[in-house]
Amino acid sequence: MIVGVLGAGQLGRMLGLAAAPLGIATRYYDDANATSPAPPAACIGPVTSGKFDDFAALDGFAAGCDVITYEFENVPVAAAEHLNRSRPVWPPPGALRAAQDRVVEKAFFRDAGTGVPGFAAVDSLADLERAVKDLGTPAILKTRRMGYDGKGQTTVRTPEGASAALAKLTAGRSAGQPADLIVEAFVPFLRELSVIGVRGADGAMAFYPVVQNFHESGILAESVAPAAALPLKMQEAAETIARRAMGGLGYVGVLAIELFELIDGRLLVNEMAPRVHNSGHWTIEGAVTSQFENHMRAVAGLPLGSTAAVGCSLMLNAIGEMPDAATVLRVPNAHLHDYGKSPRPGRKVGHVTVCREDYEGVIAALEHLRDLVPFKVDA
Amino acid sequence: MIVGVLGAGQLGRMLGLAAAPLGIATRYYDDANATSPAPPAACIGPVTSGKFDDFAALDGFAAGCDVITYEFENVPVAAAEHLNRSRPVWPPPGALRAAQDRVVEKAFFRDAGTGVPGFAAVDSLADLERAVKDLGTPAILKTRRMGYDGKGQTTVRTPEGASAALAKLTAGRSAGQPADLIVEAFVPFLRELSVIGVRGADGAMAFYPVVQNFHESGILAESVAPAAALPLKMQEAAETIARRAMGGLGYVGVLAIELFELIDGRLLVNEMAPRVHNSGHWTIEGAVTSQFENHMRAVAGLPLGSTAAVGCSLMLNAIGEMPDAATVLRVPNAHLHDYGKSPRPGRKVGHVTVCREDYEGVIAALEHLRDLVPFKVDA
Repeated sequence: MIVGVLGAGQLGRMLGLAAAPLGIATRYYDDANATSPAPPAACIGPVTSGKFDDFAALDGFAAGCDVITYEFENVPVAAAEHLNRSRPVWPPPGALRAAQDRVVEKAFFRDAGTGVPGFAAVDSLADLERAVKDLGTPAILKTRRMGYDGKGQTTVRTPEGASAALAKLTAGRSAGQPADLIVEAFVPFLRELSVIGVRGADGAMAFYPVVQNFHESGILAESVAPAAALPLKMQEAAETIARRAMGGLGYVGVLAIELFELIDGRLLVNEMAPRVHNSGHWTIEGAVTSQFENHMRAVAGLPLGSTAAVGCSLMLNAIGEMPDAATVLRVPNAHLHDYGKSPRPGRKVGHVTVCREDYEGVIAALEHLRDLVPFKVDA
Repeated sequence: MIVGVLGAGQLGRMLGLAAAPLGIATRYYDDANATSPAPPAACIGPVTSGKFDDFAALDGFAAGCDVITYEFENVPVAAAEHLNRSRPVWPPPGALRAAQDRVVEKAFFRDAGTGVPGFAAVDSLADLERAVKDLGTPAILKTRRMGYDGKGQTTVRTPEGASAALAKLTAGRSAGQPADLIVEAFVPFLRELSVIGVRGADGAMAFYPVVQNFHESGILAESVAPAAALPLKMQEAAETIARRAMGGLGYVGVLAIELFELIDGRLLVNEMAPRVHNSGHWTIEGAVTSQFENHMRAVAGLPLGSTAAVGCSLMLNAIGEMPDAATVLRVPNAHLHDYGKSPRPGRKVGHVTVCREDYEGVIAALEHLRDLVPFKVDA
C-alpha cells in the first residue's frame, strides 16, 4: 500500500518511519513555496514539490497513492476535497475545515456539548468592544486562521485596550475589510493537557493517556505522559471529548485536542489538530503503539494498536538547534530524534524522549535535560 | 553523519530506520548479482549496485560515507579491508575473517577459553575418518564457508557413513581439491540460546538478555526473550563469552553469538554473526534500545543505549510469505514487520513481535500466532 502525505516535515518523516515496517510506503507532496532542498520526510519517501491550488499536480501525485493523509492542518480544504473525489482522504476534509477557523472549531465543540472558553467572532471594533464587555478582561484576541506556536495573537488587558489590540492584529489590512478575528475569554487554568485519540476505518477508537504540556514563548517545551495525578474521571472526560469530536467528524486517523484543566476539575477545549501531534511524540518509545503507527494503521484500514503507556515518559522539544547527540544519549533511557532540519531560532528541529519507571525518574531527567536540550527562540 | 552499509536486505532496512531518528543517514552497496529492483533497504536510503571485487566502485560508494558497516557476514574480507584503508569499517574486517570460516571461528572461541563442540578441519576422507574416530558419531559435516539456514551440511551417522557424507558435500568438485569442510561433534543440547552484545567505539559494552531460539528446517522460527528460567549465572556466562570475543576482535557494533545450553549447565558456542541478528529483532519493541539503534550508535561513535528488556517478547519469522496484516495486528500488542520482499518458499519476508508482561502471555500469543504466521519452506 502507498499512502500519500500532504506536507513533508518532521511529522511526515515520523509517519513514514512508522509506516515502513507495516509494508506501507509513503510519498509526500510539499508546498512549492516552502519546500527545502531536503525536507525532513525526504529520507523515507519521494517528495513532489507543488502548489496546493494546482489540481493537475495534485492529481498526478494522487495517481500513485492508495490513500491520502496530511501532516499539517493548514492544507487548503479545497485541495483535500478535490483529492477526496478520486480516493480516500483521511482525516476527512471536514476536520480540516473545522480546525482551520477558530470560530468554527469552538462552535463545533460547544455544539457537541463540550466546554470551551467563552468566545466571539470579531470583524470590527464594535464586535470586540461588545465581546469584551461580555467575556471580561483580560481576553485573548487571535486571528481566526493560520496562527500557531503563539503567533497571531495579543492580549486585551482592559476594555480601553480593545482598539490598540485590534490595530495590532489588523495592521496592513485595507480599511473596511472584516478583521476576521476571534476573541476568547481568559481562562485561569491549572495546567495544560492534551488528549490524543485515534479512530479506525471501522469506527473503533482508542485513546492515549492524557498528557501534561508545558509551553514557553507559546511553543511546546515539554510533555509529561501520563499527566501526573490525573483522576480516572478526568481521563474519561477527555476521552469523551475526543470521542464526540471524532464521531461527529466521521474521523479516521489521529486527532489531538489541547485542553485546559480548571481549578474546579472541568476540562475546556483550547484547540484541536486533525493530525499527529507534538504532544504525542513520547508514544514512539513510551507507548505500546506510537501515534504515528496508529495513524497509519487507521488510514490504511488496519486494526488499531494498543495505546497503553509503558512507564512514564518525558518529551522535550529541541528548539532552534539540536543538542549534542552524545551528551543526550548518555542520559539513561534517553532517545534522540533529529529531524534533519537546518537550525533557526524558534524552529522545532528535534526532540528527546526519556522513559522511566516513575515520575521521580522523569523529574530527575527533566532537571538534567533542560540544561542539555536547546530552547532557542530568539536570534 | 552518513553510514554506508554493505548489503541492502532487511537488516540494512531496519538499521536505516533506526538510524534516521539519530540524524544518521544510510546508503547501501548491494551485490550486483543479488540486487533486486527494490531491495528492502531502498525505502530508507539510496542503493548502489556493484560487485565486491570492484574496488573503484567501492571507493566511489565510500567517498560519500563517513563510516562503513555491513549487514551480512559474507562480505568479502578483501573488500572490507580495502575500504578500511580510507575510513573506519565497523565491525572490524577481522571479525568477518573469523566468522566466515567455521574452523577459524571455532578455534578463535576455543583459544579465548570458551567452550565449543569438538571439531576438526576436513580436507580429505582420511581427515574425516580420523576426526569421526575422535569425536564419535553422529557428527555434523559442514562446509567451512557460506553455509546458512541449515544449508551446506549433512550428518555422519556412523563411521562407515563418512565417505558418503563427504561425497555429498563435495559433489561437483574436481578431484584432488581440498574438501574445505569442518566436522563437528554432535552436541546433545537442552536448548538453543543466543546472546547479543554491543561494543561502542570507546570500548563500553552492553548485552541484551539471552534469548531462546526455536529452529525449524534449519531456519529460525521463533525467539523468546528473555529466555525463560535462565539462571543469572548463565546470563553472566553468556556475557563473558561475548565480552571476550568482542574484546579479542577489537570489535565495534553488534555481535550475535549462538549458543547451546548443555544438560550440565555449560554453554558452548555454535557460531557468531558479526552483525545485527534475527534473534535480536524482538529488541525493536521489547528492549529500551533496539539492536539496530545500538549498532548504529556504536559505529557512529555515540554512547550505547540501555539493553534492558521491557517485559517478555516473542518474535516469529514469516517464512515464504507474509501473514495477513489485519489478522496479525488484531492480536494484542502484536507488531508487524514487512520487509517488502517478494514471496518465495524458505525466504524470510517479515516477522511479528508480541510483547507481554509475562511468559503466560507470550505462550498464549505463540499458540495463536503460529497458525497465523506462515512458515513455508517448500514450494
